Amino acid sequence: MPETSERVRELHASMTLEEKLAQLVGYWVDQGSDIVAPMQGEMASSGKYTDATEHGLGHLTRVYGTRPVEPLERAQWLWAEQRRLKEETRLGIPALVHEECLTGLAAWQAATFPTPLAWGASFDPELVEEMGALIGESMRTLGIHQGLAPVLDVIRDPRWGRVDECIAEDPYVVGTIATAYVRGLQSEGVHATLKHFVGYSASQSGRNHAPVHAGPREIADVLLPPFEMAVLDGGVRSVMNSYAEIDGVPVAADDTYLTEVLRGQWGFDGVVVSDYFSVAFLHVMHAVAEDLGHAAQLALEAGIDIELPTGDAFLAPLAERVRSGQTDVTIVDRAVLRLLAQKEDLGLLDETFDTPPESVDLDSPAHRDVARRIAEESVVLLTNDGTLPLGAGSAAPSRIALIGPNADSSEALMGCYSFANHVLAHHPEVPLGLEIPSFAEALGAELPASDITLAHGCDVDGDDRSAIDAAVESARNAELAIVVAGDRAGLFGRGTVGEGNDVESLELPGVQRELIERVVATGTPVVLVLLTGRPYAIDWAIEGDAAPRAVVQAFFPGEEGAGAIAGVLTGRVVPSGRLPLSLPRSAGAQPYSYLHPILGGPSEITSASSAPVLPFGHGLSYTSFEHSDLQVEAPEVEAGGIFTARVRVQNTGDVEGADVVQLYARDVQASVTRPVAQLLGYSRVTLAPGEAVVVEFQVPTSRLAFSNSKMQRIVEPGAIELWVGPSCDTRETEARVDITGTVFPVTIASERYVRVDVTPLSLAESIG
Amino acid sequence: MPETSERVRELHASMTLEEKLAQLVGYWVDQGSDIVAPMQGEMASSGKYTDATEHGLGHLTRVYGTRPVEPLERAQWLWAEQRRLKEETRLGIPALVHEECLTGLAAWQAATFPTPLAWGASFDPELVEEMGALIGESMRTLGIHQGLAPVLDVIRDPRWGRVDECIAEDPYVVGTIATAYVRGLQSEGVHATLKHFVGYSASQSGRNHAPVHAGPREIADVLLPPFEMAVLDGGVRSVMNSYAEIDGVPVAADDTYLTEVLRGQWGFDGVVVSDYFSVAFLHVMHAVAEDLGHAAQLALEAGIDIELPTGDAFLAPLAERVRSGQTDVTIVDRAVLRLLAQKEDLGLLDETFDTPPESVDLDSPAHRDVARRIAEESVVLLTNDGTLPLGAGSAAPSRIALIGPNADSSEALMGCYSFANHVLAHHPEVPLGLEIPSFAEALGAELPASDITLAHGCDVDGDDRSAIDAAVESARNAELAIVVAGDRAGLFGRGTVGEGNDVESLELPGVQRELIERVVATGTPVVLVLLTGRPYAIDWAIEGDAAPRAVVQAFFPGEEGAGAIAGVLTGRVVPSGRLPLSLPRSAGAQPYSYLHPILGGPSEITSASSAPVLPFGHGLSYTSFEHSDLQVEAPEVEAGGIFTARVRVQNTGDVEGADVVQLYARDVQASVTRPVAQLLGYSRVTLAPGEAVVVEFQVPTSRLAFSNSKMQRIVEPGAIELWVGPSCDTRETEARVDITGTVFPVTIASERYVRVDVTPLSLAESIG
Repeated sequence: MPETSERVRELHASMTLEEKLAQLVGYWVDQGSDIVAPMQGEMASSGKYTDATEHGLGHLTRVYGTRPVEPLERAQWLWAEQRRLKEETRLGIPALVHEECLTGLAAWQAATFPTPLAWGASFDPELVEEMGALIGESMRTLGIHQGLAPVLDVIRDPRWGRVDECIAEDPYVVGTIATAYVRGLQSEGVHATLKHFVGYSASQSGRNHAPVHAGPREIADVLLPPFEMAVLDGGVRSVMNSYAEIDGVPVAADDTYLTEVLRGQWGFDGVVVSDYFSVAFLHVMHAVAEDLGHAAQLALEAGIDIELPTGDAFLAPLAERVRSGQTDVTIVDRAVLRLLAQKEDLGLLDETFDTPPESVDLDSPAHRDVARRIAEESVVLLTNDGTLPLGAGSAAPSRIALIGPNADSSEALMGCYSFANHVLAHHPEVPLGLEIPSFAEALGAELPASDITLAHGCDVDGDDRSAIDAAVESARNAELAIVVAGDRAGLFGRGTVGEGNDVESLELPGVQRELIERVVATGTPVVLVLLTGRPYAIDWAIEGDAAPRAVVQAFFPGEEGAGAIAGVLTGRVVPSGRLPLSLPRSAGAQPYSYLHPILGGPSEITSASSAPVLPFGHGLSYTSFEHSDLQVEAPEVEAGGIFTARVRVQNTGDVEGADVVQLYARDVQASVTRPVAQLLGYSRVTLAPGEAVVVEFQVPTSRLAFSNSKMQRIVEPGAIELWVGPSCDTRETEARVDITGTVFPVTIASERYVRVDVTPLSLAESIG
Repeated sequence: MPETSERVRELHASMTLEEKLAQLVGYWVDQGSDIVAPMQGEMASSGKYTDATEHGLGHLTRVYGTRPVEPLERAQWLWAEQRRLKEETRLGIPALVHEECLTGLAAWQAATFPTPLAWGASFDPELVEEMGALIGESMRTLGIHQGLAPVLDVIRDPRWGRVDECIAEDPYVVGTIATAYVRGLQSEGVHATLKHFVGYSASQSGRNHAPVHAGPREIADVLLPPFEMAVLDGGVRSVMNSYAEIDGVPVAADDTYLTEVLRGQWGFDGVVVSDYFSVAFLHVMHAVAEDLGHAAQLALEAGIDIELPTGDAFLAPLAERVRSGQTDVTIVDRAVLRLLAQKEDLGLLDETFDTPPESVDLDSPAHRDVARRIAEESVVLLTNDGTLPLGAGSAAPSRIALIGPNADSSEALMGCYSFANHVLAHHPEVPLGLEIPSFAEALGAELPASDITLAHGCDVDGDDRSAIDAAVESARNAELAIVVAGDRAGLFGRGTVGEGNDVESLELPGVQRELIERVVATGTPVVLVLLTGRPYAIDWAIEGDAAPRAVVQAFFPGEEGAGAIAGVLTGRVVPSGRLPLSLPRSAGAQPYSYLHPILGGPSEITSASSAPVLPFGHGLSYTSFEHSDLQVEAPEVEAGGIFTARVRVQNTGDVEGADVVQLYARDVQASVTRPVAQLLGYSRVTLAPGEAVVVEFQVPTSRLAFSNSKMQRIVEPGAIELWVGPSCDTRETEARVDITGTVFPVTIASERYVRVDVTPLSLAESIG
């Protein structure tokens, strides 16, 4: 815990039990309105507001993000309310205001950025940091102190609906990008919240909230590292627990992770907030608590400080337990001190709330610029027989059939935590509140000379085939057909992906595959654009008779996403996104991760292959890159040290383009099983035609650390194979480094990041 | 370890290193012949036999079970060879002969019993014990000392190909039935081998040898208990390691399970043998050993005593390490002492091998009788609209179309470890060696008055549809169609289920579903008989337009299986099998277990249901049973004590039949998550029409024990819901018992079995 200030200590000393508990909970002004959280309808409501704030209030829950409200009007209300809390409650402590902000502030009229899978596909943490800062700025302007983002769950199963909120299948990619987000957001004085700590993404068969079957080594070596990076390197101020149970123990009731690891090992001194209703879920869903008061005690003991969204368990039920002596008040005090320190840190104890904002632009040109750049960097070209780029103007096809349920939908560009799909889905009468051109609009703007006909073809979901014939006919009459298929993001049964929308099958939803196959069967060249929130099993679209000429994968690319995709199609934008996850074979082959030991992949002793259709890291360009001459500065490095690897990267094609240089490693033999491939570091480099650079990776050997049989994290001496290539499973250039010396115990102080330097080569060197 | 005898100590003291190592390995006389083990072809061969036995020999590997040999001829060779070892090696120690024996002795002409899933479906441990004794008798007669069975892997994922070797999805069913097998086998002086210790069945996405993602609580509470029962209550003499890695640590290199749990906690004093090639796999598959010598050391340290099938690692590579001082010889000595004690225990040190057997009947009337009874008790009637039973003689349909790839196949009645499917598959020219009527033959015998036409329809696997039309036509011309579909058991790519034959989809293999749907579409009443080694996703056959009138599920029922099924169809046999596992929804819904906590089942917070098509415990009869008046003798029981529950069971139908009375429990609230249903005990009771009995279960509260947050196994006070019903998810009659007192630590001495007493009720009571 940070030094508790004198002021906080005195404040705390003066508080009644009711005043303490009031600080540990949220109040959800709009709880009755829309379902945006699991079981929200079934859970107790917040009670009458003035009663609830009689003793003060810890958090105000989703003031802007539960229903469409005019931001400045809401700010007026909020400022007045904060003044009221200062003036009318005994202690005069304002509320901490928290809001969702994963793909941008979840508020009406606020910019909607690409979904985290797109951040992952961009492999560009710096850009994500810029985005975080813009989001933070908007939030701070509106009086919001804490954002419930980013999501650091490492993807373990694409069947899970919340994959669209996750960044990648690789912990280092998740950790670097999420930490960048944290840095950006917090640079504007808004506290980020790491979620979901820990294990949520590994639920059984990808079903939301289902038990996690994982041992402590998998948790420590795969699922925890991104959080560790964001705590230690990002200095994050808040963490949210996972709903999950791991091996029978709900995280919300487990001090192993919430206290021992987080605070004990990592020195986290911020505040742990509960995921919505997860304290009550200890009673009603996990049945480890006999009632809500017991649930409150278990959560506090484990290390949860604040109950969100409301005080179902921490108010009356806990008060009764404390009074009856069943629960020791010291666990309450610990949480209150943390919350007060957070409020002091945020300047809340001194804020006067005199001047609500008079104007705000939540979707400024700066927002749109960053949204566009991430979108452009995140589009992944999966296959291309040369049909792409289409060219522009007269070079482009003159008659284009644009087909598919996502061809003319703005919502199809946004993830499940966008305000549009999270909240506006309940308010069809309310306009989006910001300009989000659909792909059809963007393509029309990109190719004004082309005659583009639009055919719906089919819905994203359902089995209505009535519009397929017309779409096929439009393809027959065109030079080129572009089919835009994929997901519709939503929550809890609304939509095909998003929170609660888990699947048993990884076929494209509805009859979209049939639509695509029939359009391909016309013989008209087809480009398939996928707008999805998870990877689908599309082997049939990658090769074989029904495969389109090119397949473009975009993960919900946000408000500027349509233009980015249209730009990729014409060639204005040279694609540079890379798959941040494996493209799966089938639902029946799950779970699968590229980070598997030998026997986690295809082998002679099983007839069931797990091999993905396309590997982690894959993505084509309109130019070509050659990776060569991977060399390690010294053939040996002491365990605990840093080694330097250099690779030559050249643009061997005709246009400028960006490559994501990927350095992989394999620990040849270790005391526990290790993955056959592990991304050590990556770097996005933009190269002119013919240009070459040397990319230097300074790799701390701690990147190769793992938990040994005694669960000590160590670097072990031994041979390490290194390679650089276009994806995890292709070794274009190889090297080897030997880790020497004795087993090195990795402490938290150890360097985590791979430093990358890019050195241009002279033209002569480039050619040579 | 048992008291090492003076004789063994002296013998050991006189041994050279070569002589010691020779005792720790097997020699596979027939290794070159057929592939019956993973990677067998790739692994080093045994070397020249006379060289290999120069210093003696620990085990002779699969003398009878690798290729078809005339048993008595082989016995002649074996006796002579044992004499040679006695006379020509310095120490004169005979070899221990081991053989596979899961569904009967894996030898030519030996009886083939039903597959373990059928034992599970019978819920009849006593009968399995009889079977074990018959198998043991055959083995002992042929000079075999150790059988590599039974399999105690608790089923966790039906995609796994080895499910057909497993007994059930419930650990108590596995434990009771496997222990019965052990008792039977060992009653004849043959040592049983528990396999695969531990975790094999929980491999990722059901792929053979793939990593197990499981925490220590799941291992302790679900996967270990059957082994514990067979060690402590069955007194088993040998254990085989699992190939699996659990959370990164290969079991073959982990002393946690092989030594601490097995010997330390349970007091096992027998011998641990390696699964075939699994010592070498520590190097080549898990990459935790740097070479074979290192692999040998890791395995010995962990607690593996004997390397099977041959001495790839334990001979030259280990000898070199011991000589160079890298490996301490004490771990060798420990294993040698155990092996010598085992040989002494088996009487091998004194055996003279003067008289090989002159005659042997490996498939005697006693074998066939037990095979028939298990088969009859194991057939599960899944659905029936009244079409079944067909009746006999003139009551039966006069024109029957018998259709399907398994209708006229003897092999379709046998599992993957049957000699026929394991070995004879490589020798199509060799006859089965015993009489195994196909279903067509059995049905013909059962219904001599009916005109039965046979149509193949399609193969088990592949997409050949050319014979479907003819089959459909035959159905059109019949009063009734019987389609016999399912699996073909085999190994490593031969067959649709069995070792190495894992699947991504749980649809019936090949085009069998299409065949069935087309036959059903004729309108002729259809009975579907499934002969499978795993459960398939057959929701379409259970209800809806394509559903046959009745579905009969048989798990490879063995040499008498066809008659058992035919008997069920006519009504001569009243079906009484119950599903020993859940009938799955789909491959994409896996893994799933009926033993799940609340959130492991369907919930409002996921759109992906996991609900099975038919639940664990389900099975229909031709009569009906009523379960009523479940009562607990006392409303409270102290933690650690035993409570008594009684339920009234009545045959309310018109024919005699057997019910499997199933007592389930749910721990309402506990310190870790607990399953929503857990089978506490079961009892097979046969009742005449109208007859009623009271079934009394004496349940040790330790049946409700679990590992708490500190991994201590305890019984926790609290309310327990109890019910009896026709399957795990129907509460026909309910009760409740409160566990009182304080937390009770469960030691290994604690009672594990639920005792069952059946008290007949007088006719008056029955009617009342």
